[in-house]
Amino acid sequence: MAGQWTTIVAAVVDEKGAFVTIDYAARLDALLEKSEADLVAFVPGENMVYFTGLHFHLSERPILGLYGRQGLSFIIPELEVAKLEARPDLEARRFVWTDQSGYEGAFREAVAALAPAGTTCAMDGQTLRFFEWRALESAGLSSAKALDVGDLFLNMRARKAPAEIANMQRAIEISEAALAATMSWARPGMTERQIADRLSAEMVERRAQGTAFLLVLTGEKSGLPHGDTGDRVWGADEFLLIDFGARYNDYPADITRTFCYGEPTAQMRAMYDAVYGANKAAREFARAGVSCEAVDRVARDVIEAAGFGPYFIHRLGHGLGLSVHELPNIVEGNAQLLEPGMVFTIEPGIYIPGVGGVRIEDNVVVTEDGIDSLTSYPREL
Amino acid sequence: MAGQWTTIVAAVVDEKGAFVTIDYAARLDALLEKSEADLVAFVPGENMVYFTGLHFHLSERPILGLYGRQGLSFIIPELEVAKLEARPDLEARRFVWTDQSGYEGAFREAVAALAPAGTTCAMDGQTLRFFEWRALESAGLSSAKALDVGDLFLNMRARKAPAEIANMQRAIEISEAALAATMSWARPGMTERQIADRLSAEMVERRAQGTAFLLVLTGEKSGLPHGDTGDRVWGADEFLLIDFGARYNDYPADITRTFCYGEPTAQMRAMYDAVYGANKAAREFARAGVSCEAVDRVARDVIEAAGFGPYFIHRLGHGLGLSVHELPNIVEGNAQLLEPGMVFTIEPGIYIPGVGGVRIEDNVVVTEDGIDSLTSYPREL
Repeated sequence: MAGQWTTIVAAVVDEKGAFVTIDYAARLDALLEKSEADLVAFVPGENMVYFTGLHFHLSERPILGLYGRQGLSFIIPELEVAKLEARPDLEARRFVWTDQSGYEGAFREAVAALAPAGTTCAMDGQTLRFFEWRALESAGLSSAKALDVGDLFLNMRARKAPAEIANMQRAIEISEAALAATMSWARPGMTERQIADRLSAEMVERRAQGTAFLLVLTGEKSGLPHGDTGDRVWGADEFLLIDFGARYNDYPADITRTFCYGEPTAQMRAMYDAVYGANKAAREFARAGVSCEAVDRVARDVIEAAGFGPYFIHRLGHGLGLSVHELPNIVEGNAQLLEPGMVFTIEPGIYIPGVGGVRIEDNVVVTEDGIDSLTSYPREL
Repeated sequence: MAGQWTTIVAAVVDEKGAFVTIDYAARLDALLEKSEADLVAFVPGENMVYFTGLHFHLSERPILGLYGRQGLSFIIPELEVAKLEARPDLEARRFVWTDQSGYEGAFREAVAALAPAGTTCAMDGQTLRFFEWRALESAGLSSAKALDVGDLFLNMRARKAPAEIANMQRAIEISEAALAATMSWARPGMTERQIADRLSAEMVERRAQGTAFLLVLTGEKSGLPHGDTGDRVWGADEFLLIDFGARYNDYPADITRTFCYGEPTAQMRAMYDAVYGANKAAREFARAGVSCEAVDRVARDVIEAAGFGPYFIHRLGHGLGLSVHELPNIVEGNAQLLEPGMVFTIEPGIYIPGVGGVRIEDNVVVTEDGIDSLTSYPREL
């Protein structure tokens, strides 16, 4: 039954060693209620962590969490069952399959037990894969009764608890200290890869628990918003764009800074000033109650006024949490209002083919009367 | 038209700096032919890398590669188009969407142009997600004409080219050297996380291009095949199980070794001997022409004879390539025959709740008359 168990788990141990309580049952109940479905289904990854605290790998071996009136169930391969055993508080029903048996039987048993004809099933379509859907469908779930509620899962996670913000703050502190150490060493003549390796090592040394993202681009390559770190050498008068973040207790930082060691051209300076102005304007404008599109617009206006409008080719930012990209989506056309506790990125950018790119990305948390920037690395060129 | 372009791209630069040629058109043509469909569809990740050489992030922004009689096309967000511009050899048609417009229109245009009524579309169901499927379906693709050919994608990648093996060999050399350095330093009394951090740093220092996998488990936790690295302290007489691998040029190593610094109990010794014997028997037996299930059986027989059968709860191994888990699947019930050039893991394990686990995992390549083990780290306790 929904709410039959509550859970006390150390999702974060704070500086004083205090444990933090998470009531997974309440999270699942709220998800089920808002889904307006009889059953919600989710796969390993951020949703599984957020709604159950369980860390599984999303692999070719399907694992499905199912929550409905009968409580929590899992379709799960035998070799992962021990992780459920270690969480007796979850009281989950298990539909177990083995490498030898294959998973089809477990899907059939689960659907027969939990989703008789007419049952509506809400799923996160952004993580559940086509083969898992086909397994559910073959087991008897009808396509008409399958709802993609990917945005609901993300909206449930959009307002962060204090412990979540504390984790991100720690990830950011590690990241910014690592960046400072790297930039005190980095010089033109080094390759993108050398700089990335150093930054990676500096994060490990500061006890980052993994890297959420790491991208080092130089010169004209900085003009590719999602280019690849390579062996290109950083030239003295070129941009160096670093987009990266450590993880801490599952939570990421997502920071971008753009550097130039030598003498930028007038065009490069103008690009930088416009991005800096856009970043600043958005940080000053954002607060609870304003719409996501309005925040995007404030930044875009600055860049358009500077004549670089066509080169700002992406949204202003995205929510940040267990996933590096989540809600709210800070984009034109999104009338969603900011709420206290939401954490998102402000990352205007200008990308000119053949010249290069500038992006300045901060991570901010919404308060009643504005935002607090969790990031504080200097933003000046 | 299929085969209208051929591509010369540096997928790997060997020790002498030589570029390696990859004919992506031939790969796509073979995929399309074997799929027996009119169109094949794939998303960012290993398939995109293997069939086009393009590195995109799999994110909430859908990117779809489509290949059929009209050649190669992409449904792609505007901010990723620059990566296509950088590959004029691909001559790909583009259906571009923006953060402002949303992606639905681009899906409709693509399906209208490439998949008129009756078109069969083969997809990789293990990576394509439910929301992408729903977008294709809403754009007009019928469920009955959508084929999940996930295993075909993987089978196309199962026999490795020499350059692919060279990349894995390099990833393994980096990994094994990093493990040797870590183990010359690691001592009981350290935590799992400390050992993992050191191993991570040793891989970065050796110019690993990322970590494919890193898991450090001690004592009874080693009895969880996919447990999580934590703050548990390694006891002198306990097992230390390390499952990890560096990446090099997209290709991973996947190695497990189990250690005990002090005096193992008789039971622990018996567990280790059985796993060691199973690993050795499988390495000596495997060769081109034998079935995957026969290799699994040879190893399982050794463990069953030692009385640990019920505690070997997973398949013997899996293919290794761009994905850490791919084909061939070395499992009971899989009659697929090994072919020269296939690379897979041999990783028998015994996991006893409350006691701990042992796994010894090697990466091998199939030759005409046996296998070559790419891994050579000592296997003795």
